[in-house]
Amino acid sequence: MINGIELGPYRDQPGHGEAQARDAADPLSGYRERFRIADPELIYLDGNSLGRLPNTTPARVDEVVHGEWGDRLIRSWNESWWHLADRIGGKIAPLIGAAAGEVIVSESTTTNLHKLAGAALALRPERGTVITDDLNFPSDIHVLAGVAARAGRRLVVVESNGVEGPVDALLAAIDDDTALVSLSLTAFKSGYTYDLAAVTAAAHDAGALVLWDLSHAVGAIEVDLGGAHVDLAVGCTYKFLNGGPGSPAFLFVRGDLVERLHNPITGWWGDAAPFDFGLDHAPASGIRRFQVGTAPILSLAAMEPGVDLVAEAGMGAVAAKGRALVEAAAERWAARLAPLGFAWATPHDPARRGAHAALAHPDAWRITQALIEVGRVVPDFRAPDNVRLGLSPLTTSFVDVHTAIERLARIVEAGVHEGYSEERSAVT
Amino acid sequence: MINGIELGPYRDQPGHGEAQARDAADPLSGYRERFRIADPELIYLDGNSLGRLPNTTPARVDEVVHGEWGDRLIRSWNESWWHLADRIGGKIAPLIGAAAGEVIVSESTTTNLHKLAGAALALRPERGTVITDDLNFPSDIHVLAGVAARAGRRLVVVESNGVEGPVDALLAAIDDDTALVSLSLTAFKSGYTYDLAAVTAAAHDAGALVLWDLSHAVGAIEVDLGGAHVDLAVGCTYKFLNGGPGSPAFLFVRGDLVERLHNPITGWWGDAAPFDFGLDHAPASGIRRFQVGTAPILSLAAMEPGVDLVAEAGMGAVAAKGRALVEAAAERWAARLAPLGFAWATPHDPARRGAHAALAHPDAWRITQALIEVGRVVPDFRAPDNVRLGLSPLTTSFVDVHTAIERLARIVEAGVHEGYSEERSAVT
Repeated sequence: MINGIELGPYRDQPGHGEAQARDAADPLSGYRERFRIADPELIYLDGNSLGRLPNTTPARVDEVVHGEWGDRLIRSWNESWWHLADRIGGKIAPLIGAAAGEVIVSESTTTNLHKLAGAALALRPERGTVITDDLNFPSDIHVLAGVAARAGRRLVVVESNGVEGPVDALLAAIDDDTALVSLSLTAFKSGYTYDLAAVTAAAHDAGALVLWDLSHAVGAIEVDLGGAHVDLAVGCTYKFLNGGPGSPAFLFVRGDLVERLHNPITGWWGDAAPFDFGLDHAPASGIRRFQVGTAPILSLAAMEPGVDLVAEAGMGAVAAKGRALVEAAAERWAARLAPLGFAWATPHDPARRGAHAALAHPDAWRITQALIEVGRVVPDFRAPDNVRLGLSPLTTSFVDVHTAIERLARIVEAGVHEGYSEERSAVT
Repeated sequence: MINGIELGPYRDQPGHGEAQARDAADPLSGYRERFRIADPELIYLDGNSLGRLPNTTPARVDEVVHGEWGDRLIRSWNESWWHLADRIGGKIAPLIGAAAGEVIVSESTTTNLHKLAGAALALRPERGTVITDDLNFPSDIHVLAGVAARAGRRLVVVESNGVEGPVDALLAAIDDDTALVSLSLTAFKSGYTYDLAAVTAAAHDAGALVLWDLSHAVGAIEVDLGGAHVDLAVGCTYKFLNGGPGSPAFLFVRGDLVERLHNPITGWWGDAAPFDFGLDHAPASGIRRFQVGTAPILSLAAMEPGVDLVAEAGMGAVAAKGRALVEAAAERWAARLAPLGFAWATPHDPARRGAHAALAHPDAWRITQALIEVGRVVPDFRAPDNVRLGLSPLTTSFVDVHTAIERLARIVEAGVHEGYSEERSAVT
């Protein structure tokens, strides 16, 4: 009990029994205990922003710090580190429907987007526009704007029509002057999820290339890049893949395209013979040509156990649980939050969802603060008015969803949030 | 004794007494035990490629993994991580004669070079050439070539005249069509070290900007970017700063220039208000505008103890020891290695040296392998014919230098290297 708010579990509340039953039937319920749960009372619904720590990660980090760096020193480049980015990329590949050799771990999502968008435009020199829409992560839009401007192209940011149907306006904008279509497969705020195959096909029909940002999709939903014949993709590993804070991102280039594309940042890690130290650059063959500089090994090695856990659980099962968790949140929203002024800011169509949900409320920022401090639930605030619930499939239970939404309802009913400041902190 | 090679210490060998006396008089001799020395018999002369593990680093990594990631989760962004790159940048600044707010930690050296070179060219739109020389790290040359080509400029790679006097040809190449001069302050192979102030002044006299790569200089020699009025610099932290494998790099922009320069990779970490999620990018004020995406926090946090140790020892004392170690290596080369066919491939003028030395020998690759396996000395091989000795001041003793060169001499005298393959491994 904090500030008069009973933290539950709310066994007598409608929906609790169903939540318990769903947990009991959940084939993935055992995965939760394979992650560090420091405070069992805290409900962490931000695994889509920073995933939890896998139990096996600290030992791997210790091995890298003490054994590989401390003891073996430079020899670890040959013994362990040189192929790490390829190996982990090879483990991410099947999670997104890619083949071995089409995925590599490298830098940040942002820098990878910069590289692949630049490379793509060079393949369509005669076309004038890059298409995205306003559901995309703003940083992606900024990167695309920069790349387009430098290449003498125009970025078109299509206005979406809310969270239910942005596709019509988007498809209408793609024409025979479109060089590249770049979108977030699952939108960072609403969770709107495109029909990967349909949008890719429409872009291809117009002769354009596609570049998908999978940051909020990988480890959350089933993605079949190969089936959709996607050209290019990038994505983040510290969200649903539980790779750790700022763990390096990945990039995908379809196998038959890779030798035709050139990395605009021509660094030694993407060179065919980096240790020959020749004065002329020749790109490495294969996906490695999209590497740039020395990878941050501690962060790179630390991400592997998280990827392994998702692979072990199986992407089909993980995605099914994600869908079920979002549906459970929708049920509890309808019962408890809609009457309190929250709008469901995520698609109603389950096929268009990811594994997070957004609740819109005019007082979202103050509510978020109260929910964290008093409610002991950690969601994300997304400006201007979203409380975003990340329902990371491996670490979230159905009772978590039930309890969190009940705490949220009680906080708003009691007006606890009215005691919080409207001023926002730097990072949220 | 391995393969008939006595591993020393060679107490009866000329020079050993002087080495012992120098260690006894060395004010920094106590720093060696503040790093992990897993195998006291192994002499590690590759601290200029990957510095040793500071004793305090594992505890810092544990804190980040267990406490900050595992326990505090997303809250650590506000509590610890958001200002980390600025804080560590602020600690690197005094090591290179920069002011607070002029240095930030970000990505890799390669990507930073790409960003700053691109930004610099936009400030000199009317000038046609970028100048570097063939002593520069090849990756830097490749990046500059890429940036120059995309900006419609021409890269001139000046042919240096060996390791003793590359400056005349360089200065002759700088003219009123030069947009940017970019060099490695200390060359990766020979250790040739430019006169920072003189070359910078010559470039400025011609109206060009300068961009220095400090990778082999920071933590090795005294660098006064402010005194030389340098415009731009980048550098590596996993060498003489002991930041760990692939630890993020840093970049420097002179304070009065920063608001006039624009990062060509317009990602959210360089935005004025990344968490407002606006569709239009506005660069952050100050050096933070050169950030791009989320930093790899484990690798970033792990580098701080190494930077702290160099700062604590004092850059003047560190640089003095580096000079003395290279001079000691030169003495032992003259006595023992010159007669065996090794050339001193580092400047004879101590003012033009860094804290590493290169020994050229036609059989350098096989000798390097034998030196590691039989001699238990780890140098670096640098193609085609250099055995490179990194003499990291905080972790190398004068007796190390004496013993290592004696082992090297005995291996070559005994022809041990002749049993090794001429075929090179992937990473060396």
